Amino acid sequence: MIVKETNIRVPYGHTDQMGFVYYGNYPLYYEMGRTESLRSMGTSYKELEDDQVLMPVIDMNIKYLKPARYDDLLTIRTIVKELPSTRMKFFYEIYNQSGELLNQGETTLIFLSQQRNRPVRCPQWMLDIFANEFAKS
Amino acid sequence: MIVKETNIRVPYGHTDQMGFVYYGNYPLYYEMGRTESLRSMGTSYKELEDDQVLMPVIDMNIKYLKPARYDDLLTIRTIVKELPSTRMKFFYEIYNQSGELLNQGETTLIFLSQQRNRPVRCPQWMLDIFANEFAKS
Amino acid sequence: MIVKETNIRVPYGHTDQMGFVYYGNYPLYYEMGRTESLRSMGTSYKELEDDQVLMPVIDMNIKYLKPARYDDLLTIRTIVKELPSTRMKFFYEIYNQSGELLNQGETTLIFLSQQRNRPVRCPQWMLDIFANEFAKS
Amino acid sequence: MIVKETNIRVPYGHTDQMGFVYYGNYPLYYEMGRTESLRSMGTSYKELEDDQVLMPVIDMNIKYLKPARYDDLLTIRTIVKELPSTRMKFFYEIYNQSGELLNQGETTLIFLSQQRNRPVRCPQWMLDIFANEFAKS
Repeated sequence: MIVKETNIRVPYGHTDQMGFVYYGNYPLYYEMGRTESLRSMGTSYKELEDDQVLMPVIDMNIKYLKPARYDDLLTIRTIVKELPSTRMKFFYEIYNQSGELLNQGETTLIFLSQQRNRPVRCPQWMLDIFANEFAKS
Repeated sequence: MIVKETNIRVPYGHTDQMGFVYYGNYPLYYEMGRTESLRSMGTSYKELEDDQVLMPVIDMNIKYLKPARYDDLLTIRTIVKELPSTRMKFFYEIYNQSGELLNQGETTLIFLSQQRNRPVRCPQWMLDIFANEFAKS
Repeated sequence: MIVKETNIRVPYGHTDQMGFVYYGNYPLYYEMGRTESLRSMGTSYKELEDDQVLMPVIDMNIKYLKPARYDDLLTIRTIVKELPSTRMKFFYEIYNQSGELLNQGETTLIFLSQQRNRPVRCPQWMLDIFANEFAKS
Repeated sequence: MIVKETNIRVPYGHTDQMGFVYYGNYPLYYEMGRTESLRSMGTSYKELEDDQVLMPVIDMNIKYLKPARYDDLLTIRTIVKELPSTRMKFFYEIYNQSGELLNQGETTLIFLSQQRNRPVRCPQWMLDIFANEFAKS
């Protein structure tokens, strides 16, 4: 299991008139969690796109447990439980600065060849990176 | 079963560099679907807030079947399958101008008393509106 | 002078915890105004991109006169005062359902050849459309 | 003159199908610049709101010089040139990781009493913080 953490400071523009983070901003937080988890493994989503492979999200579940608020310093915990094949699952937990679990979710992404516009397997070089991380954990 | 439809024209700002609507914009489209479904029943979410009742989302599932694109004229189909109690479920289907089903999802919302910051039942006046719609369908 | 109007219903997701539309959403409203003004002249920004010409914004000024609020039905008035050359200026006025002027702004856009990544003149076919609109007004 | 810097990593969700950061995201970046500049002086915008004073933006100018791109690590430089009175001006410069100046702008904000819904002077405690920063610079 790979577990990576990154922080996000909630901007004013992400709140709504309830005084909470608008529910539609969490997918962005998940994306930031995914991106930074890849970066901390020594690669990046950008590198994947440079290899002409896209990773669109095909499925997402979110549980909104408690509201996040303006200026909260959130911790996004991004979890990978198994090696990707043609699909890849990410799990997320979002905590505030008091350590309260505010939000939980998961996304399923596919690997898509940009030229052929068709699903493909996770590129071998990226699989090696994940396998290496699993070996360390 | 209550079924209501509303249209959204995809703005440039909702696309991402894949050339598709960014996956994080669909919760906004669902919100627009919910809002307009209430309006077409003769009430509004604003009226509910004026009655000091908020409806935060506590759970959301989204299936991204096909990408929506810039300038697509989307139809958001919002579906209510049962009367609300302390919770309310909305189902969504998003179609493009060619009638293709692009996206499917559901959200669960609770009724929250703004003063007491506590879950409450759906206000009677709103329940009457839904009951009336169910009777018509 | 070309003057076109389009309507936008303010969604919850565009408000912030002040209870107003977040100041960062107005550029999206301007884009919607531009897009719909082109459509009402019988063309579209999409058509321009299909012709491999992009129109990035290079300059924007916004005056926030009064706040827009959740569920307001805004009228975006988009104004073109002169024919485009290598640049094009749009002016905007945003009114609420009571006819109050809430917001005023202007943007300058350039025409950019997508292949050559270089500024170009407004395509002749589009210039003809604008000239025709000016003749009618 | 007070000059403060903060960093932002461009998420995928902020790009558009041109492959650039959508022009409507810069106001959010400016907000992040303002917020972090206040924090680095030892206060925060949240503290101001806790004192029942809001700071809505009444005027904004943006010059888009070069595009920012996905995954760019931007530096937002936030500049205060004079002490606030009933208004406060912030200037912004956004650089990418290569040190290129991409974007320049300014915003004017007012201080608004939340209870009285009326413009007020900058609270004395905040003025002292700015005066102290000016003395240091």
